[in-house]
Amino acid sequence: MNFEFQNPTHLIFGTGSITKLGEATKRYGKKALIVTGGGSVKRNGTFDKAIASLKTTGIQYVECTGIEPNPRLSSIIRGRDIARREKCDVIIALGGGSAMDAAKAIAAAVLYNGDPWDMFFHGQQNQYFPTEAMPLIAIPTLAATGSEMNCGAVITNEESKIKSFVQVPCLYPKVALVDPELTVSVPKDQTAYGVCDIITHITEGYFNGVDDTPIQDRFAEGAIQTVLEYGPKAVENGNNIEARTQVQWASIVALNGWVQSGTNGGYPVHMIEHALSAHHDVTHGAGLAVVNPAWMRFAAKNRPAKFAQFARRVMGITEKFANPLDLANAGIDKFEEFLRSIGCPTRLSELKIGEELLEQYAKDALQVLKDENGCLPARPPMTKEDIVSMLRTAL
Amino acid sequence: MNFEFQNPTHLIFGTGSITKLGEATKRYGKKALIVTGGGSVKRNGTFDKAIASLKTTGIQYVECTGIEPNPRLSSIIRGRDIARREKCDVIIALGGGSAMDAAKAIAAAVLYNGDPWDMFFHGQQNQYFPTEAMPLIAIPTLAATGSEMNCGAVITNEESKIKSFVQVPCLYPKVALVDPELTVSVPKDQTAYGVCDIITHITEGYFNGVDDTPIQDRFAEGAIQTVLEYGPKAVENGNNIEARTQVQWASIVALNGWVQSGTNGGYPVHMIEHALSAHHDVTHGAGLAVVNPAWMRFAAKNRPAKFAQFARRVMGITEKFANPLDLANAGIDKFEEFLRSIGCPTRLSELKIGEELLEQYAKDALQVLKDENGCLPARPPMTKEDIVSMLRTAL
Repeated sequence: MNFEFQNPTHLIFGTGSITKLGEATKRYGKKALIVTGGGSVKRNGTFDKAIASLKTTGIQYVECTGIEPNPRLSSIIRGRDIARREKCDVIIALGGGSAMDAAKAIAAAVLYNGDPWDMFFHGQQNQYFPTEAMPLIAIPTLAATGSEMNCGAVITNEESKIKSFVQVPCLYPKVALVDPELTVSVPKDQTAYGVCDIITHITEGYFNGVDDTPIQDRFAEGAIQTVLEYGPKAVENGNNIEARTQVQWASIVALNGWVQSGTNGGYPVHMIEHALSAHHDVTHGAGLAVVNPAWMRFAAKNRPAKFAQFARRVMGITEKFANPLDLANAGIDKFEEFLRSIGCPTRLSELKIGEELLEQYAKDALQVLKDENGCLPARPPMTKEDIVSMLRTAL
Repeated sequence: MNFEFQNPTHLIFGTGSITKLGEATKRYGKKALIVTGGGSVKRNGTFDKAIASLKTTGIQYVECTGIEPNPRLSSIIRGRDIARREKCDVIIALGGGSAMDAAKAIAAAVLYNGDPWDMFFHGQQNQYFPTEAMPLIAIPTLAATGSEMNCGAVITNEESKIKSFVQVPCLYPKVALVDPELTVSVPKDQTAYGVCDIITHITEGYFNGVDDTPIQDRFAEGAIQTVLEYGPKAVENGNNIEARTQVQWASIVALNGWVQSGTNGGYPVHMIEHALSAHHDVTHGAGLAVVNPAWMRFAAKNRPAKFAQFARRVMGITEKFANPLDLANAGIDKFEEFLRSIGCPTRLSELKIGEELLEQYAKDALQVLKDENGCLPARPPMTKEDIVSMLRTAL
């Protein structure tokens, strides 16, 4: 258990926090690039609230609108060029994970003279690790990626169809301004996919990390239990502000490092899902709902005791089983039932994905990340064949 | 659940971390003031390890030795004067909570022209809230206070016999260098008192915070459960590095804000214990072991459901009870038994404290902190009479 941790993001959490945007931004700049997605923030009034707050402290702004659900490299270049041309000195992300991740990539790209794609892992010889970025204020309008309080970003290269990530300290937002009230208009399906994303962020470290991390296990289990309790309430009634608040808070702690510290876990489910959603128009959280249970059944055979612990402590399975693997699988079955109960797909066919490109997804995932043996880092490490056969069980 | 959170400390955790001190210090200065306690770090070789690492990067140093177990204002003034005279540009704390807290106070005092006591709450008209401090590297040699990754410090004014605290963002250490191996020589009694300190840091927020913080509840319960499991192992065999590691990690998360975020809890047990140890030569953790169970029995009457939850989830009480308060008290009894089992005192008489000064302790606690009604902030708020009668049950 040797590790380092530092997360400098200033979190401002709570209903009504959006009114503090002007004050928060003033500390970092005078002219903001506001990065948004498909326009929902304009339709539901969130954009107007943000602008009203910016006006109170005299912040000017320009916009980079239309960031796609799986944000593309071309959007990063577009945003970078606007920020440079308009001489912006601070970036505000207002949207879901896509807008926030795009804003992070833009923040680093503005200060880099090369191709922004250099900063994402894709098997290149000369990886660029950004060491500086423009100051960023992140305002999530969806509880899912936790991007507002971590230093990672995921971007798709639409030409090569590779979806990859960057994770460097300079990408921590200066401020995460988190107002659960902004999420009340998120539709049921996107709320459910967000719930799945949150849980998957936690299960990745929980199942792929090192042994003997008892506090991290308890933190992970506690955060998931809370999402299992409040997630369905948020799906059921979007105006339930208590449920929205708990799910929003869970989305932050799920990926701000508190749960993962010292686990040194991999992200195989994310890596494989990224390969899917680079080829298909699939919401990230929906893709995870399909891949995670299939991956869990694959990995449980290698480490039944940990999956049995998940079954007992998280899924509340109390029956006796002949062996730990049976208990583990009962827990996975119950988890999959939970995903279906809130409206998530759990089969590739529901995403309109067939078996045609299974080899390609595996190859793409390994192009982004592989260990010294050519395997996807995970517990156990996955060969290309492992990935293909695991995905085949989810058809 | 409206709150802000920011903890910028760079944590470097793990066996052997002490060898990274030179590199870590180099980023902040060239000449260090090393703050230590009664000399154990010299006897057990820890000081030599620190110096060996500092030499690798050419860091010069001077010393401020002999910080007392309940560090005194005069020691702060002495350390401040050494740092000024020797033109130190970075401070290294090497010791337990006392050395770390003193180092924090010195770090702020060096940059303040007034009396350092101004920065501690003691009922004064003009409170000084430090906004700048010298960079600090904190290296704990005891798992207890968590001072290495928080922004608080507790100091005793030996003249007025008031023990008080300061808590401001500039006091976060730049680096927390945490090497569990440094704690293997801590004797059984101090190890046990540290365990009690850790648990009490968590119970304060858990029992005094707002309602409806399910993730924080789970985090708190998980951290305490881990300490209940590994604490006795560390007491039993000081060389059990796995136990030392888990207890050390628990001491950090117990008070770095991760467990408390959004709970907005008070610290009545600490405030009352501070009043005791300002008058008597009592180790903080031992004082807490006496005050906490007595306080819990007092507070459970006001909020039996939360204490019943503690009994079920943390203390593992499974029997049925006629009402929540009986369950709550069974949990408190079991917690007190745990404290006794690892060698902690649980009565004031064991600390050689009688009933003579009960009124004085209550008065002192309220001098440091009181709400608009003159009560100690807690759940429920405590009058002077509440404090006296609660302490009387612990005689």
